[in-house]
Amino acid sequence: MKKVAVIMGSANDLPTVQKAIDTLRSFGVCAEAHVYSAHRTPVEARRFAESAREAGFGVLIAAAGMAAHLAGALAAATTLPVIGIPISAGALSGADALLSTVQMPSGIPVAAVGIDGAVNAALLAVQILAVEDGVLAEKLAARRKADTEKTLAADAALQETAQN
Amino acid sequence: MKKVAVIMGSANDLPTVQKAIDTLRSFGVCAEAHVYSAHRTPVEARRFAESAREAGFGVLIAAAGMAAHLAGALAAATTLPVIGIPISAGALSGADALLSTVQMPSGIPVAAVGIDGAVNAALLAVQILAVEDGVLAEKLAARRKADTEKTLAADAALQETAQN
Amino acid sequence: MKKVAVIMGSANDLPTVQKAIDTLRSFGVCAEAHVYSAHRTPVEARRFAESAREAGFGVLIAAAGMAAHLAGALAAATTLPVIGIPISAGALSGADALLSTVQMPSGIPVAAVGIDGAVNAALLAVQILAVEDGVLAEKLAARRKADTEKTLAADAALQETAQN
Amino acid sequence: MKKVAVIMGSANDLPTVQKAIDTLRSFGVCAEAHVYSAHRTPVEARRFAESAREAGFGVLIAAAGMAAHLAGALAAATTLPVIGIPISAGALSGADALLSTVQMPSGIPVAAVGIDGAVNAALLAVQILAVEDGVLAEKLAARRKADTEKTLAADAALQETAQN
Amino acid sequence: MKKVAVIMGSANDLPTVQKAIDTLRSFGVCAEAHVYSAHRTPVEARRFAESAREAGFGVLIAAAGMAAHLAGALAAATTLPVIGIPISAGALSGADALLSTVQMPSGIPVAAVGIDGAVNAALLAVQILAVEDGVLAEKLAARRKADTEKTLAADAALQETAQN
Amino acid sequence: MKKVAVIMGSANDLPTVQKAIDTLRSFGVCAEAHVYSAHRTPVEARRFAESAREAGFGVLIAAAGMAAHLAGALAAATTLPVIGIPISAGALSGADALLSTVQMPSGIPVAAVGIDGAVNAALLAVQILAVEDGVLAEKLAARRKADTEKTLAADAALQETAQN
Amino acid sequence: MKKVAVIMGSANDLPTVQKAIDTLRSFGVCAEAHVYSAHRTPVEARRFAESAREAGFGVLIAAAGMAAHLAGALAAATTLPVIGIPISAGALSGADALLSTVQMPSGIPVAAVGIDGAVNAALLAVQILAVEDGVLAEKLAARRKADTEKTLAADAALQETAQN
Amino acid sequence: MKKVAVIMGSANDLPTVQKAIDTLRSFGVCAEAHVYSAHRTPVEARRFAESAREAGFGVLIAAAGMAAHLAGALAAATTLPVIGIPISAGALSGADALLSTVQMPSGIPVAAVGIDGAVNAALLAVQILAVEDGVLAEKLAARRKADTEKTLAADAALQETAQN
Repeated sequence: MKKVAVIMGSANDLPTVQKAIDTLRSFGVCAEAHVYSAHRTPVEARRFAESAREAGFGVLIAAAGMAAHLAGALAAATTLPVIGIPISAGALSGADALLSTVQMPSGIPVAAVGIDGAVNAALLAVQILAVEDGVLAEKLAARRKADTEKTLAADAALQETAQN
Repeated sequence: MKKVAVIMGSANDLPTVQKAIDTLRSFGVCAEAHVYSAHRTPVEARRFAESAREAGFGVLIAAAGMAAHLAGALAAATTLPVIGIPISAGALSGADALLSTVQMPSGIPVAAVGIDGAVNAALLAVQILAVEDGVLAEKLAARRKADTEKTLAADAALQETAQN
Repeated sequence: MKKVAVIMGSANDLPTVQKAIDTLRSFGVCAEAHVYSAHRTPVEARRFAESAREAGFGVLIAAAGMAAHLAGALAAATTLPVIGIPISAGALSGADALLSTVQMPSGIPVAAVGIDGAVNAALLAVQILAVEDGVLAEKLAARRKADTEKTLAADAALQETAQN
Repeated sequence: MKKVAVIMGSANDLPTVQKAIDTLRSFGVCAEAHVYSAHRTPVEARRFAESAREAGFGVLIAAAGMAAHLAGALAAATTLPVIGIPISAGALSGADALLSTVQMPSGIPVAAVGIDGAVNAALLAVQILAVEDGVLAEKLAARRKADTEKTLAADAALQETAQN
Repeated sequence: MKKVAVIMGSANDLPTVQKAIDTLRSFGVCAEAHVYSAHRTPVEARRFAESAREAGFGVLIAAAGMAAHLAGALAAATTLPVIGIPISAGALSGADALLSTVQMPSGIPVAAVGIDGAVNAALLAVQILAVEDGVLAEKLAARRKADTEKTLAADAALQETAQN
Repeated sequence: MKKVAVIMGSANDLPTVQKAIDTLRSFGVCAEAHVYSAHRTPVEARRFAESAREAGFGVLIAAAGMAAHLAGALAAATTLPVIGIPISAGALSGADALLSTVQMPSGIPVAAVGIDGAVNAALLAVQILAVEDGVLAEKLAARRKADTEKTLAADAALQETAQN
Repeated sequence: MKKVAVIMGSANDLPTVQKAIDTLRSFGVCAEAHVYSAHRTPVEARRFAESAREAGFGVLIAAAGMAAHLAGALAAATTLPVIGIPISAGALSGADALLSTVQMPSGIPVAAVGIDGAVNAALLAVQILAVEDGVLAEKLAARRKADTEKTLAADAALQETAQN
Repeated sequence: MKKVAVIMGSANDLPTVQKAIDTLRSFGVCAEAHVYSAHRTPVEARRFAESAREAGFGVLIAAAGMAAHLAGALAAATTLPVIGIPISAGALSGADALLSTVQMPSGIPVAAVGIDGAVNAALLAVQILAVEDGVLAEKLAARRKADTEKTLAADAALQETAQN
């Protein structure tokens, strides 16, 4: 199975990004994390993206805040799908990162998830790998079912409490 | 090769969505377009998404404006990757559609592209299919190269004109 | 008298939603609370809405945050009035939830109240039930009068304090 | 059956508001239109709202742009449900009207629909009247069904055209 | 000298509003504070504004949050200048209150100051009273001079500290 | 009676600003218009404001777009009330001008009206002059009454048309 | 004298960018225009920036719309000052480009000018070159003086027209 | 070497501004800090800017919050480059300061950095001084290299920890 790279623009983003790593691993997907910055290590970031397909990666996840160029910079250097996580750093709570990530020019798509949406970025990566992988698709379906059951259980619990 | 479904919330979205269809077909990807609304035909939309994997689809693209629930509604009914195109309809120029598409709750990811980003949605779908398809990956690389050359040609043209 | 359903997308929303439940009950309106998610339990959410009229409900209240699709999803499955409470969860303080709730496409209205406006959602539900119920209308008028008197008392208190 | 009042802050809003009036009448609901301004005719606006229940109205619809106080001003003078339509007048495209309409303080709810959402305001009013009116509920269900069929027809038409 | 009324929509706004009262009194201006709500006590609010000129007021200051209708409602009932203070209550940090206060329709102006700008509202009121009052104008000039000197002193202090 | 200065940052703003001039003159108020820029003619702008009180002005109106500093710059040089009109020039439709005008630091108030609110700026200036001028106050009351009657006439006209 | 490079992300930006080129040349500054995209020609863009100092450039100007990464990408590859012009392309009128350009992470500054601010970008470049160049500084002062006189002439013209 | 002035609108901004001062000094650049307000000490601010070139300054940095006019006011009084730091004070988290700083009218540019971007403002100033100063350019390159190495070290550290 293809690996997933989880790249963050700064080590400060690790607490959020860790949720993506953990989610990937819970599916048995090999997640390789890196700190590469579109601005402080653009050469290394580019080199990583350029060789990612050959190195066995299937999807790149990129997390960055503010003028979040990381996902776009990686996307420009690979034809693998790149998922962008806008991070809510700075005064604008991630609105800047969201726009910098999602409003890509025609030709170089980035798949944006919600602000700080690390778990969803990981799930989306798994869903991409599962397009051609029935076993992974089953695991995703199982997780969905578990989520559904958790919500139904919360509803059931609510029915039993005093407030209802 | 897996097919791609391109679903729009309203036939009014076709002029934008057509660019996604055309882009997909330019890669030889089978694109099947549908008009399904999260609100006017929720049952049909759901049924389509639920059976999409089995029907041979690999990716769903969903385009909708305003309180754009379509991508999320489809995503809730399949574990295939769902790409959302926020459409710039209505008074808020698509800012509402962008937030309604991208800010999904944990567990059900949508891969958002930019507002009216139909071409990028198609390219992202092709990139997803190309994870396990070397021929498609080559085609993507060729298109990237052509884009690069077009930009370099624009630069060359600029060097020859009077204004430089 | 018709019942009111108060549906939240996540059990995390209960502290806010509880104010709606309490307000409804203070009018003697039967409030039934549920946790149903537009994305994690779409089938159950839909089924609930489809049978709500027959089950004796007169109004549905739906609270959700971020890309808040819940109110719209319920509204698509019933012709009962659906009141949406945008919840201020996540990085954007509920601006995303407000737009996702209120900017509904033509044909499927949602009655949006302000962000975290649980008390107002409940009062609006009571006002809807009171259209044909004179006793309930009296109770609403009494609460309004009490609110007026509380404000006038605050003014009177202000006149007596040192700062005036 | 109760009547519905459709009140606009300025005669300029009539082109948008007319869609609400037409929609109401298409259901056989008696719609009475008025021009009352929260700022230019506050006394008349208030008097209308205060006597609306007694005058046989079941719902008020209020349309206004910019600092749209009309819906809130009417809501403060009646316990009937008041639906607010934010109008996209002025430089901010209705974002100001949306916030001025929906962000009501606790105690006086307004049911906001989307910017320029006149049809949805009317449908919401009909849904409110239909809580206790089975015939009206049937008509709403029929319209929903017609909308669904229109969307399905659009999908069918799409399947037959060249672009698919 | 004319009095200034300082009206707040809720007693919760007093901590902010108190700064306006204190500022007014520091100029020897008679400030009368009230709690009147555009929605909970619209009749009293209106009556106050209608009789304000006759009662010896020269300026009204109105502070309110969220869908802040108070300044506009008072302005509609008097031809005295009405100054609006948008309060930063609720999820949107006063952006809603600012737009609800300042975007008034043609015919009924409100003089908006910045969000939570209670001191500036008071100073503006004094400036209005000082148009025809030379003594008050002198006091304003003196305060301006003191502010200037305070800033210059801060600059001087900065020159002496270690960081320069 | 005191004069009112109407200052615009650029001659391009005249079409909007002319409405303020015309409104002032309709009240018999002497309006003197100027083009002074906070950035291109800061010295002249400042000098004008500094001598405005002595020159017989009672109120300054300042219209500017984008990073609209004009009203604030004038306000810093006079203790006369300064009314700011944010102009909807540029890509952001006046949202930038509104914030640049209204969000003044403590000590130097600007009385902001809505975006492009030239008529309201003039009316506010007249209201300020009318604080101590009973004749002007009467004229304002008459205009208000005329506005009210125009709105009532619009309502009456609506009652007679076919659509009602 | 050092040259100035004017780089646009797409040939579509030329109409706006041309104003920067013309302004630079009006100062006798050598302006070299290029089309380089952060995403379509990242290698060429980077290479240009890396060698810009050695090639005799003193300032780079970068114009791009939407998720405008160009200025930041160039800034990451040179220690020359990089001026970013956010272009108002796409549904969000340049708000996205502004944030993507200005909200750079610590370490890699971009000097942002206003949306579509091509003339100001050029003037800023000239001002940078003029820090050590007295002749250029004189020319800037002369242009400022001309601007001032143009504004004063507009004011004088206004004094003579009928509307004053 | 030319000096850099770091001007803040209020002594409250010192904690943020200190980072700019420290960064400048780490390059051996002479930084002179001042508290000058565009509104409280406009004369002193203007006088400082007017004489800055002659006094040996090469760049001015201006930090201010809310309706941040300081950078623009200084820019209007000098042809030296002026860098604006929008400060995140007040209810709008610096969005107002950003727009007030960056959206300057044609003719008077301000070089805006991100909200609270004091370090970047200092680095930009150094980059401007380094256009003609090879030694400073070397120091900048060294700092960039150190930043790159820090990021690479963070990546290396990540590879060794348990989570990878």
